[in-house]
Amino acid sequence: MKINVMTDILEANDRIAAVNRQLFDSHKNLVLNLMSSPGAGKTMLLEKTAQALRGKLRLGVIVGDVETARDKERLEKYDLPVVQLNTGSACHLDANMIASALPHVDLTNIDVLVIENVGNLVCPAEFRVGEDFKIMILSVTEGDEKPLKYPLMFRESSLLLINKIDLLKYTNFNLDEAKANARKVNPNIEIVDISCVTGEGISDWAAWLSGCYKRKFGTNSLA
Amino acid sequence: MKINVMTDILEANDRIAAVNRQLFDSHKNLVLNLMSSPGAGKTMLLEKTAQALRGKLRLGVIVGDVETARDKERLEKYDLPVVQLNTGSACHLDANMIASALPHVDLTNIDVLVIENVGNLVCPAEFRVGEDFKIMILSVTEGDEKPLKYPLMFRESSLLLINKIDLLKYTNFNLDEAKANARKVNPNIEIVDISCVTGEGISDWAAWLSGCYKRKFGTNSLA
Repeated sequence: MKINVMTDILEANDRIAAVNRQLFDSHKNLVLNLMSSPGAGKTMLLEKTAQALRGKLRLGVIVGDVETARDKERLEKYDLPVVQLNTGSACHLDANMIASALPHVDLTNIDVLVIENVGNLVCPAEFRVGEDFKIMILSVTEGDEKPLKYPLMFRESSLLLINKIDLLKYTNFNLDEAKANARKVNPNIEIVDISCVTGEGISDWAAWLSGCYKRKFGTNSLA
Repeated sequence: MKINVMTDILEANDRIAAVNRQLFDSHKNLVLNLMSSPGAGKTMLLEKTAQALRGKLRLGVIVGDVETARDKERLEKYDLPVVQLNTGSACHLDANMIASALPHVDLTNIDVLVIENVGNLVCPAEFRVGEDFKIMILSVTEGDEKPLKYPLMFRESSLLLINKIDLLKYTNFNLDEAKANARKVNPNIEIVDISCVTGEGISDWAAWLSGCYKRKFGTNSLA
């Protein structure tokens, strides 16, 4: 008898993710699973997103961290519903962790729910949590070869945000090369260059979000 | 009956790590397990280290990546013995992976063996591979709060290299705060500021390495 532990774990996870997804759909939530390396700018992106969506779509966040509630505290300043999940030692969020957080999230007052995953370019990409889309950030200080070295996350993501482009001139990061590498592992990936410091590209990202919401629900909730 | 899968895995790992360690000791190898987020500068540090140790200590590298042999190719230009391990989907190196690589490493011609772990600020810190010391890199573009958010790696590391300090002036990274945070989770951690671009701090890091070698073996092999 052969026990495929990993296969069993992922199948069990997918079943719970499907239940989460049904709940999200019934509440008209667009749900994004946001992934990146530590320090690529996930929380700062959400700060900018809260401002960009104000009066248009109601943002909510579930934020996963190994420890601390710092990201929650940062985001609550923007009057968002934010739930912090501490994973202890787990290096990613899974569907069951999200299910356990949902009783603490008022889904009826959220249009776009972003699940900010643990900072990790490997493991989070393996686990569905009930999202409509996986999206990811790569910052220019990490290097343009990362799509080839960590292909799964780039393969699984619908959108790649290339962040910190204000620092581009101080690095040897080749933007064209990074995009070519990302498209090599995922020809369908959409790519938006952003800087959360200068605000460049944030309106393009907000437009991408609104477009996804409109395609899923046929309307902008506050329009 | 309760099955502690994780405990069993770590105990089995530690037994293999102890065997690796005996082999390293018998070959007079100082062995370092080098960890960081993706893109923090592990490979570039090793490029600089190869130059700094030339004529003093013989460097060898085992490099772990999810995919590609790019890091190996970069390092081989420095006439080092380099073995590439591809983990496929695994997000860290463990003792068994290192054991499987050792038949391909000529330990008799190495003084300092650096095991470059997969870029990941969480999982690698859980698994001993037979090293004398765990060491880590935090780059200033990642943020000064990282020791609090990802404490295990900082707790397990003997040395923290704070890299990319040439970019310090373009970020809101607070160097004193980062060090205070690191010492909060690990009061004994040693810290060296470096820039692999400008070369700042590389001689301090090389001196740290030589000091460790001398304390372990009472001599510098090429002295």
